[in-house]
Amino acid sequence: MLKVTEKPGIISFAGGLPSPQTFPIEAFADACEKVLRGGGVDSARASLQYAASEGYRPLCEWVAASLPWDVSPDQVMITTGSQQGLDLVAKVLIDEGSRVLVETPTYLGALQAFTPMEPQIVGVASDAEGVDVDDLEGKAAPTLRTGASVTPEGPRFLYVLPNFQNPTGRSMSEARRAALVARAAAIGLPLVEDNPYGDLWFDHPPPPPLTARNPEGCIYLGSFSKVLAPGLRLGFMVAPKAIMPKLLQAKQAADLHSPSFNQRVVAEVLKDGFLDRHVPTIRALYKRQCHAMLSALRTEMAGLDVQWNEPDGGMFLWVRLPEGMNATELLPKAVEHGVAFVPGSAFYADHADPRTLRLSFVTATVEQMGVGIAALARAIREQHGA
Amino acid sequence: MLKVTEKPGIISFAGGLPSPQTFPIEAFADACEKVLRGGGVDSARASLQYAASEGYRPLCEWVAASLPWDVSPDQVMITTGSQQGLDLVAKVLIDEGSRVLVETPTYLGALQAFTPMEPQIVGVASDAEGVDVDDLEGKAAPTLRTGASVTPEGPRFLYVLPNFQNPTGRSMSEARRAALVARAAAIGLPLVEDNPYGDLWFDHPPPPPLTARNPEGCIYLGSFSKVLAPGLRLGFMVAPKAIMPKLLQAKQAADLHSPSFNQRVVAEVLKDGFLDRHVPTIRALYKRQCHAMLSALRTEMAGLDVQWNEPDGGMFLWVRLPEGMNATELLPKAVEHGVAFVPGSAFYADHADPRTLRLSFVTATVEQMGVGIAALARAIREQHGA
Repeated sequence: MLKVTEKPGIISFAGGLPSPQTFPIEAFADACEKVLRGGGVDSARASLQYAASEGYRPLCEWVAASLPWDVSPDQVMITTGSQQGLDLVAKVLIDEGSRVLVETPTYLGALQAFTPMEPQIVGVASDAEGVDVDDLEGKAAPTLRTGASVTPEGPRFLYVLPNFQNPTGRSMSEARRAALVARAAAIGLPLVEDNPYGDLWFDHPPPPPLTARNPEGCIYLGSFSKVLAPGLRLGFMVAPKAIMPKLLQAKQAADLHSPSFNQRVVAEVLKDGFLDRHVPTIRALYKRQCHAMLSALRTEMAGLDVQWNEPDGGMFLWVRLPEGMNATELLPKAVEHGVAFVPGSAFYADHADPRTLRLSFVTATVEQMGVGIAALARAIREQHGA
Repeated sequence: MLKVTEKPGIISFAGGLPSPQTFPIEAFADACEKVLRGGGVDSARASLQYAASEGYRPLCEWVAASLPWDVSPDQVMITTGSQQGLDLVAKVLIDEGSRVLVETPTYLGALQAFTPMEPQIVGVASDAEGVDVDDLEGKAAPTLRTGASVTPEGPRFLYVLPNFQNPTGRSMSEARRAALVARAAAIGLPLVEDNPYGDLWFDHPPPPPLTARNPEGCIYLGSFSKVLAPGLRLGFMVAPKAIMPKLLQAKQAADLHSPSFNQRVVAEVLKDGFLDRHVPTIRALYKRQCHAMLSALRTEMAGLDVQWNEPDGGMFLWVRLPEGMNATELLPKAVEHGVAFVPGSAFYADHADPRTLRLSFVTATVEQMGVGIAALARAIREQHGA
């Protein structure tokens, strides 16, 4: 579907692509040169050789030091994008028929990563702040699972994306985080916390991660894709020490290790506080783009019963069409008008709301924003009247 | 275990690491520079952006054109090392309890990649040329599988590594290949052909791949790790068109796509027939190293009932200890003497031969070869006498 919506001439709010103007090309080029020509032949050769499944030690150390709770580098594994973290979690924690809980809606790529292990994926009721903690209790109660097991068992984990969630752009408040972690700990429910967007706040950093509050009960996934560039495919995972051997075994079976060259290049780029200078430029850009989209929505959707949220960071916002409309049916009409989005239904484990859709505000330029949202409004008016 | 055997001072025949002196560092450095600074800003940005799960089209085209049968670029997918090809094959073709056939012995990483999908892995009898075609018939007969299925079904595929196999170094003859492909086609058994070492022949290229003989019945895995460098983690998969959508879906769920930057760098390196100049230097080096190891074995193992094969290429040879000995028990003694290897038992799906072990002749230098094999012979004599 993304291919259809990325035709030339279409203003696409569909993709989840970071703005390419934020990619630090010169820093990468300098780092490649340093890794291959600046450290002697043994270092260059090591960057091209097989390497440890855990990841390049200095990069693991950087990750551990960058996180706002006490993390040992031995608990860090470098992954081939944070998407791979989801794949490894699925392999290690899911058996056929076991239950997994997700937010409503949730990240599509997580559903795709969990599915090959054939779990039963159950959506937990969620509101503007994410997971409804009171709905957890019932969903987390032990039941007989589909497979051969005869002992009733609870869900393997709850997957949650607390900061500027994909697809909704919503964030969990401090109170909600505290409540969720406390409840999960009380009922013995592991949390898989995905945080690719946490650094992309506009005005204030989000509250501390869930994992910081109960590291032994959580697996944390992070990414370099949104703060450096996705084309290197590097992310990381932080897990309790007891589970690391199983995760490493799964990692080794999946691709032996993440590219050694890329890990050394990124470690080189990260030296000397690069992100402290670089990430504020991404935040400022995305804030401008988000405000342009919100402003266009206010103007163009006037008089239509269309709802949307106002994210405090990240890359996405979430739109709900007037009653009776269906975002999937709207899409071809929108493409006719020259604009694309992702219908929300793909992001639900169950009970999809057909009126919802996801808009990315980071790929299109500020100039395209008004044109694209106006086209979307025209498509909605036409379809709504039809 | 590899970590123990890679202590300083130990001559290691254990690892499967290509010789780092073969890595074309300058070619990579030039290619990084070209990709990031030589093609304009849009091209540099594209190399750092998310990309298609299939892979970078010019690289897919290069792969298709490099293979000795008619392959469309649409049948090629770039993978994060050929190890990932095994992971994707497992996800798409294996269900819990389904049967998978492998050679005896077989590549350990394949066993590790298949295991998370919980198949029943069955070894097919094999000789110095690989799979015994006559043993296929019985092993491939439909049976009830462990899971919920009530329809008897045959194995999902046979995994086979026909050129300079890991771990044995053995290769399939022309006659054996023809017989295997004919029999597999006759009984409807898909083949998964893994060919990471096929270009590393010493004097004569091996016969054409199995897949070239029946492309619709085979999935073919290749790698850039042994002809360029493993640290980029790039391999590829060639599959019948009908199965590509499922493989792509699994690829997307696993890591979205292989690093776009690495794919463009490798495509740049491969231009203008680079491998035609480069690979002969690897062949010559590995041939010298293999001969040095064989020569040392002949000298040092004199009078011991130790058997080994003489590979025509690749990176490994296979040793069988005297009757009553056990390679796993020998290893600590060998490490005491300053030499390491991999006991063969890890490479069997079932019925392991405890007398076998794998030696790599490409990581140690020619000078270390005699010293290491002499140490191994001393360890064998001591253990054998004990």
